Formats: sequence, C-alpha cells, structure tokens
Amino acid sequence: MHLPKAVQKLNEAFQRLPGIGPKSAARLTFYLLNVPQVFLDEFASAVTGLKKHTKTCSVCFNIDETDPCSICCDSARDQSTICIVEHPLDVVAIEKSGGFRGLYHVLGGVVNPLENIGPDQLHIYDLLPRLESATISEIILATNPTMEGEATAMYITRIIKNSQPKAGRPRAENIKITRIGRGLPTGADLQYADDLTLKRSLEGRREY
Amino acid sequence: MHLPKAVQKLNEAFQRLPGIGPKSAARLTFYLLNVPQVFLDEFASAVTGLKKHTKTCSVCFNIDETDPCSICCDSARDQSTICIVEHPLDVVAIEKSGGFRGLYHVLGGVVNPLENIGPDQLHIYDLLPRLESATISEIILATNPTMEGEATAMYITRIIKNSQPKAGRPRAENIKITRIGRGLPTGADLQYADDLTLKRSLEGRREY
Repeated sequence: MHLPKAVQKLNEAFQRLPGIGPKSAARLTFYLLNVPQVFLDEFASAVTGLKKHTKTCSVCFNIDETDPCSICCDSARDQSTICIVEHPLDVVAIEKSGGFRGLYHVLGGVVNPLENIGPDQLHIYDLLPRLESATISEIILATNPTMEGEATAMYITRIIKNSQPKAGRPRAENIKITRIGRGLPTGADLQYADDLTLKRSLEGRREY
Repeated sequence: MHLPKAVQKLNEAFQRLPGIGPKSAARLTFYLLNVPQVFLDEFASAVTGLKKHTKTCSVCFNIDETDPCSICCDSARDQSTICIVEHPLDVVAIEKSGGFRGLYHVLGGVVNPLENIGPDQLHIYDLLPRLESATISEIILATNPTMEGEATAMYITRIIKNSQPKAGRPRAENIKITRIGRGLPTGADLQYADDLTLKRSLEGRREY
C-alpha cells in the first residue's frame, strides 16, 4: 500500500519514540491529519524548542531552564541531603510527593552491562566532588528497586566508601548512606504481592 | 513542581494526542530531551509538513498526495465496486490485506448522536453522485462492527435505496449492497468468543 510521503515520514518519526509501535504511530499520524494546522505548528515548535530552551544542571544534572537548576540554587532547601535518582522524571515524581526537601543528583540511567552502560556513561563520579562540601550528611539512594537499580546503588555505596578523602577531611565515613524504603505500595493487596516485595516489607517493618 | 516551560509545552502538546495521558506524555518528552537536535528538527518538519503535503481526494475522501487519489485514478482497479469505510486507516488495512481491488469511499467517521456527529458531518451524501455512474454494481459496507458502525451502515443502505434515480436510470435497485462478513477472527478461540460474535459466526456460515 502506497502512503503519502508526508504520512510515512511522520509515521516513522513516531515509531522512533519509546512505547509507540507501527499501529499507534499510524493512529497518531492520521489523527493529526484532522487537526488545525495551527496545532501542528505549535506542536512542531514545541519539539524543536525543547532542547534549545532547557539546560542540564552542571551540579545535579537535572533538566531546567537555568544552570545551576532552580533546586540547586534554592537556599531554602536542605543542603545536607542528596537524593540520587536515575532520571529527571524521578525528580519530578519525588517533588510531587512532597516527601523530600533536599538536593538531587541525577545519574542519567543505571549501570547495565547488557546495554553497554558502565559507570563512566553515567554521572556517578560527578557525585564525589559534591561530597567534599562540609554540609552533606546523608545520601539517599533512590534508584529503582530493579536488578540494575540495586546494582547501581551498591556500586555508588562502594565508590563513596572508597573515595579518597581530601587532606584532613575524612568525610566519607561521616556520610550516612540510605536506601529508599521497600515494601507494599499504598492501596496494594497483600495476597497479590510478590514474594520479594513481601519479604522486603517484613524486613522494613517499623514500630507502630 | 516547577518544570521548564519548553518541557511543559511539549508535554501538553503530547497530551492532546489520542491515547497519550500525562505519564506517557512526560515519558515521551523526557525521552526527546536525550535525542540529537537533528531528530527533533526532522520530527518537527514532519509534523508541520503533514497536511501541507497531503490532499483529501475529492472523489473518495481518502488521504493521498494527489487529488483524485491514486486509487481513484487507477484504471486497473475494479470500477464496479465501492467499499465504504470509516477512516483512511481502514483503507490502508484493507489494501494491506490484499482482499479488495475496487474503489473506496471514506466517510470520515460514523453517525454518533452522543458526540453530535450526524450524516451531514460525514461524506455520506457525497456517495450518491458516485452511484449514478453506470459502472457501479456493488457497495460493500465496511464500517466497524460496532453499534455506531452498524447504525451508519443501515443509514447508508436506506439513503441509497431511497435515492431519487436520475431520469431513465433506476440505478439504486440494481446495486447490490453487502456488509463485510462477521464471525470469529483468525486465531481466535471459540470458548472465549462473545455471544454476539458466535451468533454472527453461525449466521454467516458458508458451505465448505
């Protein structure tokens, strides 16, 4: 079947996005054929402008309009705690939860040997200079509770513990390293929970 | 949580697409933050160029680069059969199946009183002039087997039958009107099929 080139082109562009297969791509493309050109132009300018009007923070590697980002610049935030996350979207999720008022460090992914992603492709070593500041007292490892996330958390713990302290500043030992709590998510059903979640939930029990 | 304006803008644009909610939109937007600008520019030009480089065929209302479209212009196709479908994507699906070599008529949707879509919003009446050509001998109603699709098929049948024949050309009675076959889809499991599908499948049985 011969499709117009313009349709094919957009179809292919959509298919390069994560989670969009050939059928969804076609649905989106044919939907856009029925919207006003004004919306198409707005959409296109949002796409081209995306990276031009955003910056990666050189301190925490979060995405923002300024560098350093608004979180790193905000002196009202707790400067003693750094929460380590995989992606900028994790920062959005944690901020939305309202459960954290410290600083972040965005790794940009996880160590994943199968996909050839080693620590050097991530912002793991960029964390070390930040720890030399006298104010940092806690590191929260908030990588995902997946195999890769756990491995990355373990790797970071090791390099923090092994990091060479600057003269007269044996910091690493004084920094508390914590991992986000594991257990049943709110609204979950005990009988449908998997074994590992239940096990971690029991291990992570707290006094009531 | 304060997000960069460029991110918010693209997020909102994605959320206006069908089947993309706030979470998928955010995932797509943050994915695009990590692709080269070249791809963003290509994507944007595909979006703006979509409608500029496509035309709606004035005969069958399919989408193509030319008007009339390549199917309407193709004299090698069976000029005596018109297959009526809801959307241009249905044309793509039928063409891919290879089961039809006639002409199409794209309605642009179905009659749907709940969404305020009446026959006048569709290309139903545009079908009548096409039937006056002496070559048309069959109309295949290939609207979806949904409530709205069935109602639209019934409505079209009625207006064809009631259409005023041009002087000396009592065409409507000579045109065979058929509905696409109903039954179990290939690979289906009889025991999981719904009642109506099974009923239609029995009604639509053929000699073996």
